[in-house]
Amino acid sequence: MSSLGAVLDRIDQNLDQSLERLFALLRIPSISTDPAFASQCRDAAAHVASDLGTIGFDVRVRETAGHPVVVGKGGDGGGPRALFYGHYDVQPVDPLDLWDSPPFEPRIATLPGGRKVIVARGACDDKGQVMTFIEACRAFRQVTGKLPFPITMMIEGEEESGSKNLFDFVRDNAAEFRLDLALVCDTGMWNPRTPMITTGLRGLLYEEIRIRCADRDLHSGMFGGAAQNPIRVLAKVLGAIHDDDGRITIPGFYADVRELAPALRAELAGLGLTPENFLQPVGLKIPAGEKDRSLLEQISTRPTCDVNGIVGGYTGEGAKTVIASEASAKVSFRLVVDQDPAKIRDAFRAFVRARVPADCAVEFVSHSGTPAIQLAPDSPALVKAREALADEWGKKPVAAGIGGSVPIVGDFKEVLGMDVLMVGFGLDDDRVHSPNEKYDLTSFHKGTRSWARILAALAES
Amino acid sequence: MSSLGAVLDRIDQNLDQSLERLFALLRIPSISTDPAFASQCRDAAAHVASDLGTIGFDVRVRETAGHPVVVGKGGDGGGPRALFYGHYDVQPVDPLDLWDSPPFEPRIATLPGGRKVIVARGACDDKGQVMTFIEACRAFRQVTGKLPFPITMMIEGEEESGSKNLFDFVRDNAAEFRLDLALVCDTGMWNPRTPMITTGLRGLLYEEIRIRCADRDLHSGMFGGAAQNPIRVLAKVLGAIHDDDGRITIPGFYADVRELAPALRAELAGLGLTPENFLQPVGLKIPAGEKDRSLLEQISTRPTCDVNGIVGGYTGEGAKTVIASEASAKVSFRLVVDQDPAKIRDAFRAFVRARVPADCAVEFVSHSGTPAIQLAPDSPALVKAREALADEWGKKPVAAGIGGSVPIVGDFKEVLGMDVLMVGFGLDDDRVHSPNEKYDLTSFHKGTRSWARILAALAES
Repeated sequence: MSSLGAVLDRIDQNLDQSLERLFALLRIPSISTDPAFASQCRDAAAHVASDLGTIGFDVRVRETAGHPVVVGKGGDGGGPRALFYGHYDVQPVDPLDLWDSPPFEPRIATLPGGRKVIVARGACDDKGQVMTFIEACRAFRQVTGKLPFPITMMIEGEEESGSKNLFDFVRDNAAEFRLDLALVCDTGMWNPRTPMITTGLRGLLYEEIRIRCADRDLHSGMFGGAAQNPIRVLAKVLGAIHDDDGRITIPGFYADVRELAPALRAELAGLGLTPENFLQPVGLKIPAGEKDRSLLEQISTRPTCDVNGIVGGYTGEGAKTVIASEASAKVSFRLVVDQDPAKIRDAFRAFVRARVPADCAVEFVSHSGTPAIQLAPDSPALVKAREALADEWGKKPVAAGIGGSVPIVGDFKEVLGMDVLMVGFGLDDDRVHSPNEKYDLTSFHKGTRSWARILAALAES
Repeated sequence: MSSLGAVLDRIDQNLDQSLERLFALLRIPSISTDPAFASQCRDAAAHVASDLGTIGFDVRVRETAGHPVVVGKGGDGGGPRALFYGHYDVQPVDPLDLWDSPPFEPRIATLPGGRKVIVARGACDDKGQVMTFIEACRAFRQVTGKLPFPITMMIEGEEESGSKNLFDFVRDNAAEFRLDLALVCDTGMWNPRTPMITTGLRGLLYEEIRIRCADRDLHSGMFGGAAQNPIRVLAKVLGAIHDDDGRITIPGFYADVRELAPALRAELAGLGLTPENFLQPVGLKIPAGEKDRSLLEQISTRPTCDVNGIVGGYTGEGAKTVIASEASAKVSFRLVVDQDPAKIRDAFRAFVRARVPADCAVEFVSHSGTPAIQLAPDSPALVKAREALADEWGKKPVAAGIGGSVPIVGDFKEVLGMDVLMVGFGLDDDRVHSPNEKYDLTSFHKGTRSWARILAALAES
């Protein structure tokens, strides 16, 4: 039996223990964006560090201005020197009452139709995905006594809040992390049967707006009609961002957006993404983006804007006739290649300021601003990963630029000058960032096997 | 000394005890709109009932489908049979962190400039105002041994949530409450030195909108650009309600609004309400209503719309890249004479539905719908009250239609066929419905004296 065959067998035999290790990590509520969970983030870092230690990595929990980064180094010999990136932090869990079970008490559930899934916050994003890689390394080590080639692990704790301290960390330690190849497991499958290599990521600009009008809450019976209402101002601003055709109206927003080459456009169309298979599973039918663009373009090659949260005035039970003094919203943009986050931020802020009446004040908080990235579709690592994934899934993987942002990936490419291989096993219905987040047991198991195959393929150089 | 003189002296001597009684009522957190405070509302009703009992009223706490109504009957002999209306319930207190002291621990504070004020939720609206009348009755009873004429007290517990059960209560007991005159103390002064008789009240239509899109929260990295966002839909709807000139764009909204006679318009202008004296005290400068209307028209004779609250998506600290499944807003309209709340509600709902995309659902909850009322400016009671107020304040009162809604007043006039006399002592800076609500000690003291004078004047018939 080849060593790969033995490694895959070991992964199959060890599945229950692998799940136990994942569950232990999922039990730690490492919500990075909420300062109340800072110590739990530190617990998660320590937990990951300790686990990596058990498979021979030399690990340090490295401090940043925020949550720490776990860095582990292992393996030797030939083959590429690889940097694996993932994150141990998770999204907030609210609204908590929509969870069917406590978000940090992972469990296996069976969906109608028989799919078995792991349910917990972070089950997919990114703890489950990170563990597919770690478990593949573990099987290698158990079967062959060592890792297949030199691997540096970088597991950070602020991805869900824009990786704000990781950028400096990577730049400050560029010499250490400038290796041959970056591996990332934080993306999705094309569909439950078809693997995917993600070749591009949209950037993310995340802004918070606060509008203030009167210096106190007012009674709408007395002041209604005469006093500026910050919710009305905010609604005017947010309601003006998109026109009736779904286009974003901020001046200059599309100025640097490249049109797709007709061939690429045709290739995207050929992937067969439809409202039925993409939107229907979440209760929708009609693509909401730019009317003259295909659904796949709307979610992959075109920039977008979403309001992620809004609050102002009385939001409790019943009625209160108040004019609030303040209202706020969180607004994010998915950016495409060549859009400059700083330029878009300036244009957005000017757009907002132009709509705030003289009597009101606006304040901005920036939560993140990272550019989109586009990876070469034919790098040697990608070609090898393509074959390895085809072997595991019995189906050629799709290579496309789809999905969320992984903020640091741009710096791996631009600052460290590395090829980046993004392979992940999330599914569209994983409820990532939502209540009842899940990760298919198949994603976890075959994901681990996929990484074993990719590691074996990369080692043959 | 006339009996009025003795009554006024007694009010002056009793001020400290009167305040103690008011404070005892203010300590009860009778927030009617929040079901969590139902038992406290009942406590407040019992407290008022017991207090009225001490001045000779025959009192019953009468059940409704919601919070109970305190009904007390006292007095005999000639003079008009009067119904006094007020409410023991108060507005919610959030945002609690903006209060300088706990909202249900009343205290006397001194403002810069030396004005002494009572600070607490309900200090003005309406516990302080109700107690001016009760304390005037108490002084009459103490000095003369009886009330000046037959008085029925009706102190309800749902005014702040639209008096939704009082309408049936009044209709079901119309024969009992159809008296000669209704007295209401829930309105304001023209300014700190000038009393006011309120001769009209705007109506109130209060609607809640809930927009639902996907059947779960979505990750904006995956679905952004393709999935309808309920906050975006809501912003489009709310942002479209007013045009750039401050006019409401809902079709038919102004159809039944009467234009003011030029003489009345001139009279309003003569009252000298300016942005400096009305808006500046709350940190604003520029009237936000219809551009071609005066400030006084904007707040008194023209209908308005305000968004009183909005919430959707992630509103915690930091950033979350979520597309919410649901967003909601509370929207209220101040209506003027001849606008039919049911008609406006239908027009508003049609306006909203026309802006909700096919993929989304909208749901409405109605919190209230009461028409505006206009009272005769020359009823015998009003003429007497005008003199009584002038005697107390040394200044002729303004008679105008300004301020919030008192939902049941329309029914006193239309259903019971009574004259209604609305006199109150609130001031524009009372922070009614806001943190740090206050009531001037002068309003409380001279308000009590004012009622004593009005009662004496009405008794002379």
